[in-house]
Amino acid sequence: MIVYSSNNFIPLENVKISPFDRGFQFGDGAYEVIRYFDKDFFKLEEHLNRLKYSLDELKINFHSYDKIKNIALKLLNENSLADYGALIYIQVTRGVCYPRIHSIKNDIAPTLFISASKFIRREKEINEGVKIIFTEDSRWNRCDIKSIMLLPNSMAKGKAIQAGASEAVFVREGRITEGSHTSFGAVIKGKVVFPPYSNFILRGVTRDTITGILLKNKFDIQLREISPHDSFDECFLLGTSTEVTPVIQAGNIEISGGKPGELTKKIQTLFNESTSGTAGKQFNSV
Amino acid sequence: MIVYSSNNFIPLENVKISPFDRGFQFGDGAYEVIRYFDKDFFKLEEHLNRLKYSLDELKINFHSYDKIKNIALKLLNENSLADYGALIYIQVTRGVCYPRIHSIKNDIAPTLFISASKFIRREKEINEGVKIIFTEDSRWNRCDIKSIMLLPNSMAKGKAIQAGASEAVFVREGRITEGSHTSFGAVIKGKVVFPPYSNFILRGVTRDTITGILLKNKFDIQLREISPHDSFDECFLLGTSTEVTPVIQAGNIEISGGKPGELTKKIQTLFNESTSGTAGKQFNSV
Repeated sequence: MIVYSSNNFIPLENVKISPFDRGFQFGDGAYEVIRYFDKDFFKLEEHLNRLKYSLDELKINFHSYDKIKNIALKLLNENSLADYGALIYIQVTRGVCYPRIHSIKNDIAPTLFISASKFIRREKEINEGVKIIFTEDSRWNRCDIKSIMLLPNSMAKGKAIQAGASEAVFVREGRITEGSHTSFGAVIKGKVVFPPYSNFILRGVTRDTITGILLKNKFDIQLREISPHDSFDECFLLGTSTEVTPVIQAGNIEISGGKPGELTKKIQTLFNESTSGTAGKQFNSV
Repeated sequence: MIVYSSNNFIPLENVKISPFDRGFQFGDGAYEVIRYFDKDFFKLEEHLNRLKYSLDELKINFHSYDKIKNIALKLLNENSLADYGALIYIQVTRGVCYPRIHSIKNDIAPTLFISASKFIRREKEINEGVKIIFTEDSRWNRCDIKSIMLLPNSMAKGKAIQAGASEAVFVREGRITEGSHTSFGAVIKGKVVFPPYSNFILRGVTRDTITGILLKNKFDIQLREISPHDSFDECFLLGTSTEVTPVIQAGNIEISGGKPGELTKKIQTLFNESTSGTAGKQFNSV
């Protein structure tokens, strides 16, 4: 497997991340995962804009956004992935800082790491729906930054898996924020609802894409605080790998009769049509 | 510089941390910093116990606590530090996980990294006191774990430095928790006060040591919620490198007349005597 690290395309086993990289010692970095299918990247610009937002908020001096696309294309070729569905993983950290100090140094060169891997779409989950659990949102208060401080996300996801569920959805002070690696949406009283963006919620590329599609199709979208105790007609998860995944059970509560909701299926169809339109091929046929 | 990584003593530049190490991609690990002076480690067992607490809480399968002392001693020798004051940095992460998945795998081998560096005591700060700022505690809700998710700590420390201060002290819902890398203590109405330990506060090895010393010397110690608006006779910071550092200004407010408080100086003296007792040499003469 060839990856990109320290300005080079090299085998993964040759990569030398320094133990004094602030990504390793401080969680001091941000990342993006971008989907590639049908010989194109899905919402590349939106992902790079979000990466820029994250790094700007963290005051990490990274400016090489322009070269990411070509690096990703070369990685797809080097790894014989260009004809498949793939995920591009991009991580930028503040860089190497020795001696280790708590305060932030801004005169160091950021670390850029990029890898590409084959993507297997989760057909069963997308078609049949998943179970989720609700769990306390234990994260810091800047979840609008896609930082690599993902330990609470991992712990929550692990808790979900242990409970036989696919995803953990965070609840902060009684309000649903988002999943451990997905956006959360619901249908309540016939309307599509999302929790309003704040410092507790990441701006979702897929959520924004779907919001655009729904508005174009004259759907009513309500932004409001959502409680796990709300009466849900339907729930769904959104994300780069997740696409539009129906939720059919939340904890012990069955959602929309234990099968994907009708409006959720409509959103899936509209999303698939839209991606077909932009990328020239059915999203779900990759 | 020789460090310990992947079961080997090797030059720092030869260390290969994998980009798929969960420490690098998820902040999934914990650490300790232990002080070495006068040919001995200060509170080694307490630090290793705390490391075990952190890793057990994170369900990281690490069991090699017994070998850390010998590794540290060898690093001190290899780096010609054995006759100086030094800091031992120990980091354990969950290990390397490829492909990257959010949920936690427990069948992977943890990564252990240890380094030793010369320690320069901050004489001026300890003798003359420092300025602090109060800042919102933006961290996650498991600060009792000494995890490597230190980005909010770094950001707060950076904010302090920018304000011409030495340390940022976190305030969560109106209550002081701790500094970005120190414990916080105060003197209010003649009594030494600490915030009670909770999931928002790390159990401090230096704070616990000093608590023991003060109780032995018949001091009254009060555990109570502390507001940044309390009327402080004195404030001080505690930590492995920080020792007992007086606070002489908090934001724009002068503390104890802008010079180290009398009780704080008494605590410094008792701490120095105590470390002299255990390690056979004045702590501050290293």
